[in-house]
Amino acid sequence: MSTTPQDPRTATSATTAAGVLARCDELDRYSSLTTALERVYLSPEHAGVNELVAGWMQAAGLRTWVDAAGNLNGRREGPEPGMPALVLGSHLDTVTDAGSYDGMLGVVMAVAVAERLSGTALPFALEVVGFSDEEGTRFGKALLGSQAWSGEWDPDWWDLRDKRGTTLHQAFLDFGLDPRAVGEAARRPEDLVGYLEAHIEQGPHLEAADASLGYVTTIAGARRFLLTVHGEARHAGGTPYERRKDALVGASEVVTAIERRARQSSCIATVGRLDVHPGGVNVIPGRVDLTLDLRAATDPERDQMWDAMLAEAETLCELRGLRLEVTETHHAPAAPCAGWLTDAVVEGIGVTGDTDPMGLWSRAGHDAMAVAQVTEIAMLFLRCFDGISHHPGENVREVDVALGLDAFEAAVLAVATRYGARRAEAAR
Amino acid sequence: MSTTPQDPRTATSATTAAGVLARCDELDRYSSLTTALERVYLSPEHAGVNELVAGWMQAAGLRTWVDAAGNLNGRREGPEPGMPALVLGSHLDTVTDAGSYDGMLGVVMAVAVAERLSGTALPFALEVVGFSDEEGTRFGKALLGSQAWSGEWDPDWWDLRDKRGTTLHQAFLDFGLDPRAVGEAARRPEDLVGYLEAHIEQGPHLEAADASLGYVTTIAGARRFLLTVHGEARHAGGTPYERRKDALVGASEVVTAIERRARQSSCIATVGRLDVHPGGVNVIPGRVDLTLDLRAATDPERDQMWDAMLAEAETLCELRGLRLEVTETHHAPAAPCAGWLTDAVVEGIGVTGDTDPMGLWSRAGHDAMAVAQVTEIAMLFLRCFDGISHHPGENVREVDVALGLDAFEAAVLAVATRYGARRAEAAR
Repeated sequence: MSTTPQDPRTATSATTAAGVLARCDELDRYSSLTTALERVYLSPEHAGVNELVAGWMQAAGLRTWVDAAGNLNGRREGPEPGMPALVLGSHLDTVTDAGSYDGMLGVVMAVAVAERLSGTALPFALEVVGFSDEEGTRFGKALLGSQAWSGEWDPDWWDLRDKRGTTLHQAFLDFGLDPRAVGEAARRPEDLVGYLEAHIEQGPHLEAADASLGYVTTIAGARRFLLTVHGEARHAGGTPYERRKDALVGASEVVTAIERRARQSSCIATVGRLDVHPGGVNVIPGRVDLTLDLRAATDPERDQMWDAMLAEAETLCELRGLRLEVTETHHAPAAPCAGWLTDAVVEGIGVTGDTDPMGLWSRAGHDAMAVAQVTEIAMLFLRCFDGISHHPGENVREVDVALGLDAFEAAVLAVATRYGARRAEAAR
Repeated sequence: MSTTPQDPRTATSATTAAGVLARCDELDRYSSLTTALERVYLSPEHAGVNELVAGWMQAAGLRTWVDAAGNLNGRREGPEPGMPALVLGSHLDTVTDAGSYDGMLGVVMAVAVAERLSGTALPFALEVVGFSDEEGTRFGKALLGSQAWSGEWDPDWWDLRDKRGTTLHQAFLDFGLDPRAVGEAARRPEDLVGYLEAHIEQGPHLEAADASLGYVTTIAGARRFLLTVHGEARHAGGTPYERRKDALVGASEVVTAIERRARQSSCIATVGRLDVHPGGVNVIPGRVDLTLDLRAATDPERDQMWDAMLAEAETLCELRGLRLEVTETHHAPAAPCAGWLTDAVVEGIGVTGDTDPMGLWSRAGHDAMAVAQVTEIAMLFLRCFDGISHHPGENVREVDVALGLDAFEAAVLAVATRYGARRAEAAR
């Protein structure tokens, strides 16, 4: 691979769809599990992909640095040093037993687009960011990387612990980061033009519409809760039913009630984690912790659904003499995409021949939600196989990646055009 | 404490109810958890209590040894060395977040009775055993200690693994035991007179009848199963309901169906453990492993119930496109107590003033079930508080322990009388 700027029209292997997919495969090597993919925040694998992708960024002519929260950044200056930057990016961390494209595809495509445009004059600096923690796999809290980048760090997070009991504070130190310096990762609005993120849809809608690409109108804001059902642990043999306070049977009723209510609405509710205590084969469960992830197209729909679910869960627990305790662990407002950046994405998709692309709301959360707090955002969605994501079966077609690269590149050029016009307008 | 034989009528602190309860408290210090009690097979805490209780046994005039499966044994010879032994015992291991009396009370009472009888001539050797693994907390398989003692060891068990992946074979080595020698723990029927076990009831029946003590008629045989529900892990946001194969919602329906069926019968069914994979807050569960513990007064009742539960679980999974996989992990026949030993226990209870004690079937499993394969058994139950067991709230009254000690001691003497008569009869 060469570090010399290239003619954008001469595709190197790294700027083709095949090259992008090969790089996604290469990232799979950095996994904490031998038989499945898992790459979490501040792990050795996190350091590994930062180094690998930094090499790719440098080959694309970007200057690279790892910021104070472990995010990998690359930058090519505009006509003058220090100009505001258009940022392209996504994340490099994964869920447990993950697929190869959620997050990574967007980063690798961003690097490829930066390389394609290395000979093109743009009226701003161009940056690529690989966020370090979107999924929240390790500390149970999503978007840590992009929230640090967006200046939204909450000091309470230092006490978050992973499964082994390591605090986020300690994990920073172990990774070689200074927790006191985390504020230095934060970007200033005046240094940013906007943020574009390419991502697989993680849903079946583009595939159902037979479309390769789509644009995002708004990103649904999830609310997440930790529900703890308190019962009483007792001997499984000796305790008759009238004396049982079985936290797991109560929790199971709550899980099925949550699904029933969501199915009857346009909301999406998922209980992804459920831990039983003490967890002995011959002990009646005394406590169950479960997580609820709740999404809807609009915040009021979502909040009404939560109120109804909570009321039913409380009733179910009460009937069994169980006590329900609820903590909200995440609360994100819906993040609308900016009109002018979305217009640029639509124009980008247009160069692939689809002049009336599909717009859809993102049921999944994205780094762009956090970034929306500091600059304007837009998103390009790529069709994925059968809507499968967060699973090794996650897949994307090479032809869609090829169209996506062309659209993403054209979108950056469309932003450049609009940016010039907006600045001229603002100067008038 | 003195190792000199004492007049059995002169109670030392160790032979009183208060002394017994103090020793149970002392055992609590050997826990792998700082804020709760957990003492599992082949752990440092297991070694710790073996050493502590061996000291108490020696003070009661017993010769002690740890056998090839980690069980702690103590023995006082009869009129001639090598005579068959009457064995008193229970177990020293615990569930997670356990109470202080399940198992331990029976061992400590046995030591106290041995000390009380240290000056009394018996027509057999007297042994006390502290079994090393009754609960199966570490390897998911119950009665490992007493099964080794009873000569029922299955070589397949060497591959059992604990949560950390350590095999039972490796755990033997780590504890300083030679796996090849495990057969040496096995006792021969001709070396045994019988086995008496004192235990808290772990149920509410004696308390409801206002009785301190009771005897066991038969020990219900549990069947245990591992049920695995296979679904498909997908992204929690992007996957609409018609495409979900949520293993946890299916498993929750199975859990509630199991309880509904058991409540409508005289069976007792408990799902004590349930693990969700991959367990991410934003991932639809792709697989759930859950355990089922099933008991009834008779084996046919229990087996019919299992057939019905399995059929319903299969239907529930099928309706959701889930696949159910079932493994039987434990299958014990009901173990009836021997008439002549039970008569001795009833006679023992009689000295406390209750000449018509309550007989009840044990819903809980006990080491006596395994021991029943190698010698005859009987059990003395002590009332416990509110039927609570396998929970820190497990409790027993000092007055009941005092009566239990008198009854247990008298039962041993009653066995001695009957044993002489039976031998005389056999010789005629």
